[in-house]
Amino acid sequence: MSIKMTGLGSFIPNLKRKNSDFLKHEFLNLDGSGFPHANEITIEKFKAITGIEERRYLEEDLSTSDMATVAGQKAIENSGIDPETLDYIIVAHNYGDVKFGSVQSDTVPSIATRVKHNLRIKNPKCVGYDVLFGCPGWIEAVIQAQAFIKSGMAKKCLVIGAEALSRVVDKYDRDSMIFSDGAGATVIEASEEPGGILAHNSATYAYQDAHHIYFGKSNRSEEADDTRYIKMNGRKIYEFALTHVPEAMKSCLEESGKSIEDVKKVFIHQANEKMDEAIIARFYKQYKMKAPENVMPMSIHELGNSSVATVPTLLDLVITGNIPNQDLNKGDVIILASVGAGMNINALVYQY
Amino acid sequence: MSIKMTGLGSFIPNLKRKNSDFLKHEFLNLDGSGFPHANEITIEKFKAITGIEERRYLEEDLSTSDMATVAGQKAIENSGIDPETLDYIIVAHNYGDVKFGSVQSDTVPSIATRVKHNLRIKNPKCVGYDVLFGCPGWIEAVIQAQAFIKSGMAKKCLVIGAEALSRVVDKYDRDSMIFSDGAGATVIEASEEPGGILAHNSATYAYQDAHHIYFGKSNRSEEADDTRYIKMNGRKIYEFALTHVPEAMKSCLEESGKSIEDVKKVFIHQANEKMDEAIIARFYKQYKMKAPENVMPMSIHELGNSSVATVPTLLDLVITGNIPNQDLNKGDVIILASVGAGMNINALVYQY
Repeated sequence: MSIKMTGLGSFIPNLKRKNSDFLKHEFLNLDGSGFPHANEITIEKFKAITGIEERRYLEEDLSTSDMATVAGQKAIENSGIDPETLDYIIVAHNYGDVKFGSVQSDTVPSIATRVKHNLRIKNPKCVGYDVLFGCPGWIEAVIQAQAFIKSGMAKKCLVIGAEALSRVVDKYDRDSMIFSDGAGATVIEASEEPGGILAHNSATYAYQDAHHIYFGKSNRSEEADDTRYIKMNGRKIYEFALTHVPEAMKSCLEESGKSIEDVKKVFIHQANEKMDEAIIARFYKQYKMKAPENVMPMSIHELGNSSVATVPTLLDLVITGNIPNQDLNKGDVIILASVGAGMNINALVYQY
Repeated sequence: MSIKMTGLGSFIPNLKRKNSDFLKHEFLNLDGSGFPHANEITIEKFKAITGIEERRYLEEDLSTSDMATVAGQKAIENSGIDPETLDYIIVAHNYGDVKFGSVQSDTVPSIATRVKHNLRIKNPKCVGYDVLFGCPGWIEAVIQAQAFIKSGMAKKCLVIGAEALSRVVDKYDRDSMIFSDGAGATVIEASEEPGGILAHNSATYAYQDAHHIYFGKSNRSEEADDTRYIKMNGRKIYEFALTHVPEAMKSCLEESGKSIEDVKKVFIHQANEKMDEAIIARFYKQYKMKAPENVMPMSIHELGNSSVATVPTLLDLVITGNIPNQDLNKGDVIILASVGAGMNINALVYQY
């Protein structure tokens, strides 16, 4: 028996926010001090490091569970399964449904329940729950689906990653330009075909790295209220990712029994272009190789960092031929890898 | 191989809130109208239905993750394992860390990461994640731990349920008297001893029951802000629970291969005394029996409804001899069952 993704779907919001839309923002440092140069320079530097030129924001009248529903629906249609045969709906996110203009996360009922309700699935034995695991949540939910299938507790799972980071950003924080909204989903099934999930690797580094991504006050210290927003220590995350992600990918590849020459594509969480380029370079360096051209598809330039949604969305875009010079063919061995709040890391070796 | 709970621990906050502490509250209906009688009567009726005389609130300087840490620490000590040998830390909750006085849920990093950080566990292969599944979250997390152990992905898991509902109640809502704070935890291990988890049953009724427990505005409609609180449709929940929980327990017991005569104790989520009594009566009625005396330990009178924490806390209290006329002996077959937001239901047949 293999465990395969038999359908993919994603929801990419229509609203584009270009870097130039941030020209009039008042960007401040954590201590409330300003930058010594104009916003043009701040944005230029930002783009040089992250690669981000524009990002997508969810329409004001929609929430995370709406994006999750659309992505889930598309994955179900793409797989061709009857939704009533699903054993699990697992939704990875971190902030729940945040209404536009609100500062509250709405997580009861779970996003999985809302998706199941929206999809009009009746079968009560289709169990819906949410997973919080930082940006690597979607890959982790795939690993959990694998556990249910391996243990005989499930045959078919819908695994969704959805997040609307635009609803939790501090507009006075330069990092707000990184974050975006989106959702991606897959149907995972026990299969008689070869391939599928060959190996996985997960880790939580909480001893000294727990708080690199956190909930903190606005950089505009005069702000009277104590509303908190997504905050991160970019330098620490960069160092952490470079230290741990390439070794997690290598260890996962070894466990899969495949060789580095077998790897056709590597899908890395779209957090920061320079960081992802450094990760892939260091990954191949472990094999005394340079990263092959086009081995790492990227969507960050147009889509920004949509947390749990980046990996499934990117996979969907490549499979549907929507990323120039990228494709996947039956039998291709790929690596999926992510890193984020926790600090959590995971990697998956998968044969398409 | 069996899958057993080898240690239990709980955190019951020290701050007691008696029913009389609510005498001066202004209780309103959903539509903002008042009650036609004095608070004494409202509280007397409340007690007659729910059984709740007092409940526990978390100290102002603590959060859900602090309770989870203490419960987890106790479970680890009780099991005698080296915490560095844990493969998973799974924390069930629904609202994350809510600071006293704040209306925001803080879920990044995950509560599992915070617990792992607080417990000073270094091993990165100990993976921490959070589960959102309404009140049945802790039992569901036990079922997930079972999947990891069965599939060979884990040997030892720490499973925690923690919630501070006092931080999300609307003080103008009579239902605010139901909710309380607490945490319970267990260490689950692959074991060579007989017994352990014999069967499980989970369900999500999202088609027409998704929104019986939800996030809604204050009953005081003049309140200018749009802050939202935990809200529930008690009548719908009562009807739902009576219809579905007894059958889920029966189906689980059948799958376990044990008979109704084998069942020594039934631990039901402490949501409402009258509801729990009706559930146990209807459960036994399916076997044309009356519920045996003392078969259902209760903690709701003193502890209220602490969501995910009620079942593990109650189990811990019975095992440690802290509930009058209740005990558990090696080999006893017990049923754990829960119902809550989703609407989710689960049941577990376990041999102690």
